[in-house]
Amino acid sequence: MEFQPTNPSFEADIRQSFSKQTAMTTIGAQLTKVDAGLVEISIPYSANLTQQNGYLHGGIITTIADSACGYAAYSLMPPGSEVLSVEFKVNLLRPAQGRSFVATAEVIKPGRTLTVARADVVSIGEDGKRELIATMQATMICLQNRT
Amino acid sequence: MEFQPTNPSFEADIRQSFSKQTAMTTIGAQLTKVDAGLVEISIPYSANLTQQNGYLHGGIITTIADSACGYAAYSLMPPGSEVLSVEFKVNLLRPAQGRSFVATAEVIKPGRTLTVARADVVSIGEDGKRELIATMQATMICLQNRT
Amino acid sequence: MEFQPTNPSFEADIRQSFSKQTAMTTIGAQLTKVDAGLVEISIPYSANLTQQNGYLHGGIITTIADSACGYAAYSLMPPGSEVLSVEFKVNLLRPAQGRSFVATAEVIKPGRTLTVARADVVSIGEDGKRELIATMQATMICLQNRT
Amino acid sequence: MEFQPTNPSFEADIRQSFSKQTAMTTIGAQLTKVDAGLVEISIPYSANLTQQNGYLHGGIITTIADSACGYAAYSLMPPGSEVLSVEFKVNLLRPAQGRSFVATAEVIKPGRTLTVARADVVSIGEDGKRELIATMQATMICLQNRT
Repeated sequence: MEFQPTNPSFEADIRQSFSKQTAMTTIGAQLTKVDAGLVEISIPYSANLTQQNGYLHGGIITTIADSACGYAAYSLMPPGSEVLSVEFKVNLLRPAQGRSFVATAEVIKPGRTLTVARADVVSIGEDGKRELIATMQATMICLQNRT
Repeated sequence: MEFQPTNPSFEADIRQSFSKQTAMTTIGAQLTKVDAGLVEISIPYSANLTQQNGYLHGGIITTIADSACGYAAYSLMPPGSEVLSVEFKVNLLRPAQGRSFVATAEVIKPGRTLTVARADVVSIGEDGKRELIATMQATMICLQNRT
Repeated sequence: MEFQPTNPSFEADIRQSFSKQTAMTTIGAQLTKVDAGLVEISIPYSANLTQQNGYLHGGIITTIADSACGYAAYSLMPPGSEVLSVEFKVNLLRPAQGRSFVATAEVIKPGRTLTVARADVVSIGEDGKRELIATMQATMICLQNRT
Repeated sequence: MEFQPTNPSFEADIRQSFSKQTAMTTIGAQLTKVDAGLVEISIPYSANLTQQNGYLHGGIITTIADSACGYAAYSLMPPGSEVLSVEFKVNLLRPAQGRSFVATAEVIKPGRTLTVARADVVSIGEDGKRELIATMQATMICLQNRT
């Protein structure tokens, strides 16, 4: 889908907001793409962020997918807005093993108050092979005139 | 609900599995209660795990709720099983602010293959006041004879 | 939880709105309890509303749970509001077999814009035995000054 | 995605199973496409299946999306399997108004036990215009050797 952003500085605003998400730095996540209605967050595998089998913890995968959905939604919100996650649902499709992981979120339905986004998370193996490991469907809310 | 665990050493097995979840140590989470069908995981507030407003990141809240649901399900699985998260849905009800956060997961419906659990996450304020900040509904799968 | 409704005629408003839901009449559903923050909708088993095994279709179970969540939320909204479903997630826990089915929805977190509710659906067997067959977690939105 | 079905008579099996879903006949739904990993179910608008504003009830939209996801999953299951819905999550994106509605479900991740599918539901207006009104993410389970 093609979206018309109403905030001309959405990319700068997203980058600034992302820099305040200390959780992103702590888990090693990076903002790797920012477009209107589409945001990508990447994270390397880390032996410090696993579940019991040594796979990246599903909650960590969810953390990058949630931020990616939030910023995809935020890219279409008016200047001076805030975005918060209302809810999300994640299916964990395959074990989160690989060299790194990329969550790509896209807006499905923008709205004045609520925006619905979807994120697919792929693993990138040592050989560069990509596999879909999780998918999120999320609802984001716009709080206006808060900043 | 009252559940009859079939694994007599479920508590030790859960504590051992939890100790392998390096994500839990990294985010500072602790296993604070283990009963048949009920598991509690707690985490202090950390300035290193926030979203853009300084609240604990929703993904971190989700991470402890996911592990709590997984272990609540695991407590009722037969000896030698493995548990994995199939999917979960989280509603973030209030900003995750406070001194610490407690995710309490309970099994709603145990099953041979799939178990459904629910987790409520409360914040504990500086004054000790508890507020419900998130709720999760999760599906867990039992992999048998894997260990 | 105890809730203070702000609409003194919430029960009459819910009953009137329910009477406009022609889907409820068509599937044979009835509003069997209306309290502040808690609404119950019941439906008899019908051989005309099944899936392929003769169980009541999960979508029909979802339909009564959705309306129950919507009205539970609506009971706490100000006079003159409208309620719409934003999203819901349902786990189907057991086959929907029995004489009738009751969806009981309760508000978990009321809000000015969004309200989160949960519904449990039980089957009632020929012998009167109740079993939990489904559970829903739902987000409802309040549209104000629409009527 | 391209899928290799293992059941050569998947289409006939789906059509037969659909014919046993009496809920589909009652609500006027029809199976309008059956492919490997992709199933479409359509329903005309009916004044007998509305919510309080005269839009098609979200639960009815969910009913066709659920069956579509179930059959998309079923198309990739081995001969002699049964399919049941484990859980689904639906976002209702726009009011369900229009002449008819089409739920298109696609498998995202097939599996021996669990299959994850997604359905988009569009409305078709009097002028033929299509709008996305709902989206579902669903988990289906395969029960083998049951028939």
